[in-house]
Amino acid sequence: MATRETDVIIVGAGISGLTAARYLLKKDPNLQVLVLEAKDRVGGRTLSVNMKCKNGTDTWDLGGQWVGRCQPHIMSLLDELGIETHTQYQTGRKYLQIGPKYTITSYTSDIPTLSLVGLLDLNRLINLTDKLAGEIDPEDPFSCPKAELWDSMTLESFIDSKIWSKDVKDVFRACFRTMLGVEISQVSLLYFLTYVASCGDLKTMVEASEHSAQEYRIKGGSQQVCIKLLEEIGSSRVLFNEPVTCIEQQSDHVIVYSRNGCNYKCQKIILAIPPMQKGRIQFNPILPTHTREIIKRMPPSNILKFVVTFPQDFWREAGSSGEVVSNGGYSDIRGCDVGPLCVVYDGNSSNGEPALVGLTGGLQCVQWQHQSPEDRKSAVIKSLADIFGEKVHTYIEYRDKVWDVEPYNEGAPVSCVSPGAMRYYANGLREPFNRIHFAGTESATVWCGFMNGAVQAGQRAAIEVLYDIRPQLISAHDLSSIKYPRQLLKQKSSRGKKLLKITIGIGVITLIALAVNKMVRSK
Amino acid sequence: MATRETDVIIVGAGISGLTAARYLLKKDPNLQVLVLEAKDRVGGRTLSVNMKCKNGTDTWDLGGQWVGRCQPHIMSLLDELGIETHTQYQTGRKYLQIGPKYTITSYTSDIPTLSLVGLLDLNRLINLTDKLAGEIDPEDPFSCPKAELWDSMTLESFIDSKIWSKDVKDVFRACFRTMLGVEISQVSLLYFLTYVASCGDLKTMVEASEHSAQEYRIKGGSQQVCIKLLEEIGSSRVLFNEPVTCIEQQSDHVIVYSRNGCNYKCQKIILAIPPMQKGRIQFNPILPTHTREIIKRMPPSNILKFVVTFPQDFWREAGSSGEVVSNGGYSDIRGCDVGPLCVVYDGNSSNGEPALVGLTGGLQCVQWQHQSPEDRKSAVIKSLADIFGEKVHTYIEYRDKVWDVEPYNEGAPVSCVSPGAMRYYANGLREPFNRIHFAGTESATVWCGFMNGAVQAGQRAAIEVLYDIRPQLISAHDLSSIKYPRQLLKQKSSRGKKLLKITIGIGVITLIALAVNKMVRSK
Repeated sequence: MATRETDVIIVGAGISGLTAARYLLKKDPNLQVLVLEAKDRVGGRTLSVNMKCKNGTDTWDLGGQWVGRCQPHIMSLLDELGIETHTQYQTGRKYLQIGPKYTITSYTSDIPTLSLVGLLDLNRLINLTDKLAGEIDPEDPFSCPKAELWDSMTLESFIDSKIWSKDVKDVFRACFRTMLGVEISQVSLLYFLTYVASCGDLKTMVEASEHSAQEYRIKGGSQQVCIKLLEEIGSSRVLFNEPVTCIEQQSDHVIVYSRNGCNYKCQKIILAIPPMQKGRIQFNPILPTHTREIIKRMPPSNILKFVVTFPQDFWREAGSSGEVVSNGGYSDIRGCDVGPLCVVYDGNSSNGEPALVGLTGGLQCVQWQHQSPEDRKSAVIKSLADIFGEKVHTYIEYRDKVWDVEPYNEGAPVSCVSPGAMRYYANGLREPFNRIHFAGTESATVWCGFMNGAVQAGQRAAIEVLYDIRPQLISAHDLSSIKYPRQLLKQKSSRGKKLLKITIGIGVITLIALAVNKMVRSK
Repeated sequence: MATRETDVIIVGAGISGLTAARYLLKKDPNLQVLVLEAKDRVGGRTLSVNMKCKNGTDTWDLGGQWVGRCQPHIMSLLDELGIETHTQYQTGRKYLQIGPKYTITSYTSDIPTLSLVGLLDLNRLINLTDKLAGEIDPEDPFSCPKAELWDSMTLESFIDSKIWSKDVKDVFRACFRTMLGVEISQVSLLYFLTYVASCGDLKTMVEASEHSAQEYRIKGGSQQVCIKLLEEIGSSRVLFNEPVTCIEQQSDHVIVYSRNGCNYKCQKIILAIPPMQKGRIQFNPILPTHTREIIKRMPPSNILKFVVTFPQDFWREAGSSGEVVSNGGYSDIRGCDVGPLCVVYDGNSSNGEPALVGLTGGLQCVQWQHQSPEDRKSAVIKSLADIFGEKVHTYIEYRDKVWDVEPYNEGAPVSCVSPGAMRYYANGLREPFNRIHFAGTESATVWCGFMNGAVQAGQRAAIEVLYDIRPQLISAHDLSSIKYPRQLLKQKSSRGKKLLKITIGIGVITLIALAVNKMVRSK
């Protein structure tokens, strides 16, 4: 078969790959850029679907959906693409389901209904995490003095050594099952801290409040980002159903082979695919040691997302924000230790169509993906009803997606590093290998694992390529823009920490006052 | 292309795959068995090469090389194939290189030259390991009451919490860098204990003494096992250079596709390949969740093996066994934190041709594989000379092999489990998936990770297949033989432990006596 020649090939039509393509073409519209996508769609780990709802149909996200003002790269891109956002609904009572009895409590402030010990534990753990993360440079996490020690332990060992309250562990576990898609036993503490450092601080990373990572949703669904990027770069530049099987580097060009028997010749190639997917491709010469070491210890995570549409937003009417953090709740399903809930949010569309969305990760996701879609639906509806009441049964449509079985992703939202491999992280994920450059959110240094990271990494890889093949198009500003704005985030981070300390401090005092009050009364 | 039909396909012509083939054909010589091997040779992680030596040339192993009477499956197979063994030379002084100054000391007993605290630490750590391993059933490690806790921590976290002496950590690190090919930070404590449990006890696993795992070597090299197996089953049944890319299960057969465009139809298929290599194959339907979960957290390890031949065995003449355990020693090579030594053994061939063999694993292997073969050779020779003296420079030939870059292995000696995945281990590695059965040493329950495990797992997979397609050929004895002889090993293990306790006990007392004596003298 004839070889198709082009300047740059990008593997993967997710946000990172298409951002790279757009950047290249913005700098040089005459550059020949070709994107090879294994699937039949753009979007990668974003996927927007139409669902039945109160007034007909509307769009919801079964993949990544949140952005926030703290994420500069994705926010600029949305702006440039003319994509609007709407605010994640946050008003009202939140629910917490924890403990061996799966007790459901609710709270209206930022302070979850934990015991005094629990609140102190939570406060201490958050502060300590931010303090340790503050010692890490996301550009080079292994340069930190304690890197080796922190990489020798799991996040769970760290949490176990710092807290007294099992409830706080439940909260942390639920949180990272959905944020990272893993069990806290599965990740390196150093990786976790690096992840937090790339976001600024823990609270900004996990909250849905103003200026945090879950602040906004994308009107019309996040897959639009890739759809608009595709329109802009031109759909003729993207080939679908074209999985790459082999990449051969010669001295002055690269040959790329696809499963369909096609081959392509280019000057440069950008791999914008999840880490372990790189292991599926045969490289000649083989990838450098540090890249092989990091990708083989960065398995894709487990995540399941569900969306349920309703005729009314009865939770809002009842004064709830729709937010739930749960250790799963009781389960009578064989093979499932706990129920299917992990975190739930208000999911009303930007058109006001009522919905709840939820994420279930880690072990819970593994166990619930074994069940039939019908059983999963019943269990989710039942669990939601335990919290929000019988009106949940009036739902219009339920849809879920197990990302673990999505071809060419095999998991989401992010690939986390197992202990003992972080020394290979910075170079292994980012350092170009002759004519091969690496993008993908895992290779980002600002909000890695988020859509923001995908954009940042895509731009960085594009700049690297241009610097080599069109140096005259790259300004000092472009080069500096690929560096991590550490200074900026640090300032933000310390502000956030102070605020949190004050908030929790006030909360603890209030609770002590209430407890004393209660003791006095009960006498 | 036409489809070739057969009864059973085995993927992988290592010890496990070929043992399975032999077992099937022994039970039913009319069964159509076809082995598909991606490489151009049999042997998997065994590889024997000819090297120049004192009296011409002889054969040495660049892969797995040790067996012992404690390993019933491989010993029987060797016997049946008419392959002889010879004893690992063990007489004389051993060397230990540890500490921040890379101090070299020597000792003649079984008790290494550690401080009193170090000896107590070592004794305690060995006893504790055996005690905990004794609580684990290698058939089902996650059934142990503490499974979740032990799987939430790394081996390093465990060691750090139990010892005072950094020297003992050096010894353990060197030991597992070469036994498992990993850093102690990279493995789940529960996996490590399961591994030990599958061997009986720690001392049997790591020692080269009588009845231990490094007791014998195979005359003429271990690759002979596969070469003889190939002769026995007939070379027409093995196709080389035939990497499998896709396995499709239908209701009553399986279709197997190869990279060369061939396809095969069979009733049953046995995968006798390393865990992560399964991830390189496309399955339709996809592999079950527990299999996907375990294989993605079981990366191949890092190992480098070297053999150096000499005109005389000057170490023996000088009263040394040739055995060295080292933390690497000093390095002035950029990118290598320490020197290239980890463990060294006397490697004289069965014909008495003098040689030393060494293994370097984990981080040391990663760092040294970056160096040129020439630089690696110089460094090994220099390090050996630091220990054995200038006669090392009279060497005849040096050869090494970095298993990390071996295609279709990508590492050796074994694939270890990262923390947080052991709940998927037993089912994920062994439970058949419709018409797909799993072999390979990682799926063994007796000496997993060793040649013995490869044999046991291959036999077990073959029995599973026969049980389904030729049940009349399977006896109750066959079925029972695939069960783990727990009782037997337990007895052995407790005997071993007692002996060890007595040995170290005596050692400690002797040392205390010597120390007191010294103190008295110095007064």
